[in-house]
Amino acid sequence: MEVPLTPLDFLERARRLFPARVGVVEGDRRFTYADFAARAHRLAHALRGHLAVAPGDRVAWLCGNTHELLEAYYGVLLAGGVLVPLNIRLAPAELRHCLADCGATVLVRHPDQPDVAPHRAREVLLGDAYEDLLAAQPAEPAEPPPVEEGATAEIFYTSGTTGSPRGVMLTHRGLYLHAVHSALTGGLTGDDVILHTIPLFHVNGWGTPHYVTALGGVHVMLPRFDAAEVLRLVEAERVTRLFVVPTMMRSILDEPALAGRDVSSLRQVSIGGAPPGPELLAEVEDRLGCTCISGYGLTESGPTLTRSLDKPGEPPSRARRATTGLPIVGVDVRVLGDDDAEVPWDGRTPGEICARSNHVMAGYWEAPEATAEALRGGWLRTGDIAVVDADGYLRIVDRKKDLIISGGENVSSVEVEHCLAAHPAVVEVAVVGAPHERWGEVPRAWVAVRPGTHATEDELIGWVRDRLAHFKAPREVRFLDELPKGGTGKILKADLRERA
Amino acid sequence: MEVPLTPLDFLERARRLFPARVGVVEGDRRFTYADFAARAHRLAHALRGHLAVAPGDRVAWLCGNTHELLEAYYGVLLAGGVLVPLNIRLAPAELRHCLADCGATVLVRHPDQPDVAPHRAREVLLGDAYEDLLAAQPAEPAEPPPVEEGATAEIFYTSGTTGSPRGVMLTHRGLYLHAVHSALTGGLTGDDVILHTIPLFHVNGWGTPHYVTALGGVHVMLPRFDAAEVLRLVEAERVTRLFVVPTMMRSILDEPALAGRDVSSLRQVSIGGAPPGPELLAEVEDRLGCTCISGYGLTESGPTLTRSLDKPGEPPSRARRATTGLPIVGVDVRVLGDDDAEVPWDGRTPGEICARSNHVMAGYWEAPEATAEALRGGWLRTGDIAVVDADGYLRIVDRKKDLIISGGENVSSVEVEHCLAAHPAVVEVAVVGAPHERWGEVPRAWVAVRPGTHATEDELIGWVRDRLAHFKAPREVRFLDELPKGGTGKILKADLRERA
Repeated sequence: MEVPLTPLDFLERARRLFPARVGVVEGDRRFTYADFAARAHRLAHALRGHLAVAPGDRVAWLCGNTHELLEAYYGVLLAGGVLVPLNIRLAPAELRHCLADCGATVLVRHPDQPDVAPHRAREVLLGDAYEDLLAAQPAEPAEPPPVEEGATAEIFYTSGTTGSPRGVMLTHRGLYLHAVHSALTGGLTGDDVILHTIPLFHVNGWGTPHYVTALGGVHVMLPRFDAAEVLRLVEAERVTRLFVVPTMMRSILDEPALAGRDVSSLRQVSIGGAPPGPELLAEVEDRLGCTCISGYGLTESGPTLTRSLDKPGEPPSRARRATTGLPIVGVDVRVLGDDDAEVPWDGRTPGEICARSNHVMAGYWEAPEATAEALRGGWLRTGDIAVVDADGYLRIVDRKKDLIISGGENVSSVEVEHCLAAHPAVVEVAVVGAPHERWGEVPRAWVAVRPGTHATEDELIGWVRDRLAHFKAPREVRFLDELPKGGTGKILKADLRERA
Repeated sequence: MEVPLTPLDFLERARRLFPARVGVVEGDRRFTYADFAARAHRLAHALRGHLAVAPGDRVAWLCGNTHELLEAYYGVLLAGGVLVPLNIRLAPAELRHCLADCGATVLVRHPDQPDVAPHRAREVLLGDAYEDLLAAQPAEPAEPPPVEEGATAEIFYTSGTTGSPRGVMLTHRGLYLHAVHSALTGGLTGDDVILHTIPLFHVNGWGTPHYVTALGGVHVMLPRFDAAEVLRLVEAERVTRLFVVPTMMRSILDEPALAGRDVSSLRQVSIGGAPPGPELLAEVEDRLGCTCISGYGLTESGPTLTRSLDKPGEPPSRARRATTGLPIVGVDVRVLGDDDAEVPWDGRTPGEICARSNHVMAGYWEAPEATAEALRGGWLRTGDIAVVDADGYLRIVDRKKDLIISGGENVSSVEVEHCLAAHPAVVEVAVVGAPHERWGEVPRAWVAVRPGTHATEDELIGWVRDRLAHFKAPREVRFLDELPKGGTGKILKADLRERA
């Protein structure tokens, strides 16, 4: 028997089996799975009726990590629509581009977000107007139109460092399988309590909107990231898992309130968005008393490709947890050399991380050429450069475009960054290539120093020279109060590269 | 990107990521995942070459729970063939029927199994002949022919109580999804060690051949069930999970060696095949010191439909664990009344358990009418009668054909059996309907008494009358040394019903 794979089944399961379970917490508000489902179904009714959404229409959302966006992950699909969560960090002109590009017919906007008019979408403001609209809908569950599992269910615009943002199409099938594979590989259960530190408008919320629901776990919403609030919620809601990017983790560890908080409920911290340095990983484990792993993926891969889990039957290894990790179930990840052959697992031969998986996007919205290029030869080409060790663990050494070639030697900017990040005064660091007459390029470091500490350029260059090959040491170190960031807090290297 | 779903990915994952992990143990032999995969690939080469298997050809196996059968779960599919594991408890005439019905071109047989000739399959005997054949194959991995996920991968003949056994067709897609859904719902990890007490020639081995491999767990083979050997292996291999039928569990608990064995590694015992009584469940938990749950499914459903797990966020409940359980992820289970409407969740309105899921069979081999009847209206009709309690837990009250109707009252034979099973002298029990002039039918109990104990007919009838409505008490109790069993040890009620 073939039944279409769709994430809609996850909410339906929770609605039927766990109706009384408090599944969503936001501030003082607590929603059971019955409440969550009822609100999603009312949204579906409103979209199909009042807002005239036809199957396949795009419905855009512009808000932080609120329970309404979580509900939209299901309500929009129940209406037969395609969810387009927009990145609140984009500029109004970029948002207008996204809305026009996908031809959204509806925009649901939080009043704390700027008006991005003019656009052609019908707009609904969260708050009273939205609540009145839901309240006016029938209480009966909405019957979704028939699902084709290969149809697009979500579109995420990538923050791409060059050119206009492109819409990544993720299908019902891809989202469904990503959820079960991620949860299975990660050992998630219905007892897990997830704090949504990572924006749900980014990379499919790392799959959490789907698999936490399927298992009957708890979603704790965090409309805006704030380290003190994270720690308060971990204690108050007994959060078991945190998903963060390195800059978030750094600010949590540097938050003075940490010392007074009970974080004993934490089982695992998963760091993604950029490779965590081994020092950061060790500090998390030592200070929070839980396992820390890294996760790696792209919007285009739905997103998770690898997680740095220990191997079954082998002793836990912090060195392995500090790598980019092993492919999760359901993903074939290969590091391919220039001839598209897999590189040897020798820990030193770099190649491009490529992936084949049902999680990989169907393509970029209305961009067949860019799609063909990204999926050339049946592999998603990530643009990330990695080596593979003898045990199969990947280690990202660079973005293809971030690789620094200095005097014919490849310099991994990530390696130099990890080295500098281990210096006690360094709180943020990015290493980019700077043009150089003799060597072609040389490494240039951009550094933010921890408040109350001090470091000189010479001291930091010497720090690297003591630890790495001399050609890897930056020729210059530039200091900023804070490094420029986009999206989920990823440092904008392209921006730094362009600075003189 | 769409990639065909196939269980072949599971072995490939283990081969790539966990090559050095000892994945299969049989007696003194230990196979790493590299060994396991190498043997499966050699089998594929042999099937395609020497044994002339073409894509879609059926390859039958006749052996107990040996590592070779586990390897065949992958090797036959790698060759493009369809695996047909035959039930070693069938009579030669029945086995010949199965071989002829599916048109197997190859039969691999263990020398301890009877020769079932004449048949048209090419036969290979396990042992030296088989090992020589593998040794003669290339060492390179076999490249499987392209997989269509909707194609049949395995056929299991059901032991059906009436008529000839029918072949249940399970697809690549169904087997893949069953594995990830079962493992996710059950919380399996790569650290789990599974003892194969349940025959792999039955109901897809409950999915264990696939998901244990995907996660890099350990398969411990048990060629023939023996309670003392089970206990020895639990201690020696630090087994974490046991899957058993009630009669197996009873014999393990009654095994004198239990007292001297360290079974502290056990995390969970899962009882299927027939609903465990609450007394058995309690005894397992108290004496083995681990959680006991029930699992329910059919060959036709791939098999798992429900597991009696606790609900997330609610206190553990032995009463719930003694039910038939909740649907697992990926399965829509409904108890439907005569009008195909879901029965109320009131704990007392019976209906037929029906299921929609990708795990459900594609159909019966070359039996379109039987298929249409089993899948009528888009639901698998299980023939099992259940009630649903207010929390959604199913409780099987009977097989449709086992329901006893006495004086217009429905008598659940399962309820009466559980009542009798709680009597200290009763070791096996089955209750069936016996024709009766006045009442139409009356309950008749068949009982085996624990060695060294004693019980009379009057005493057992009185035991039930003290605990249940009088019309539910058996009118007769007949004693046997052992009740007749087929398949995985399920008691053959049809056989008892026909005895005078």
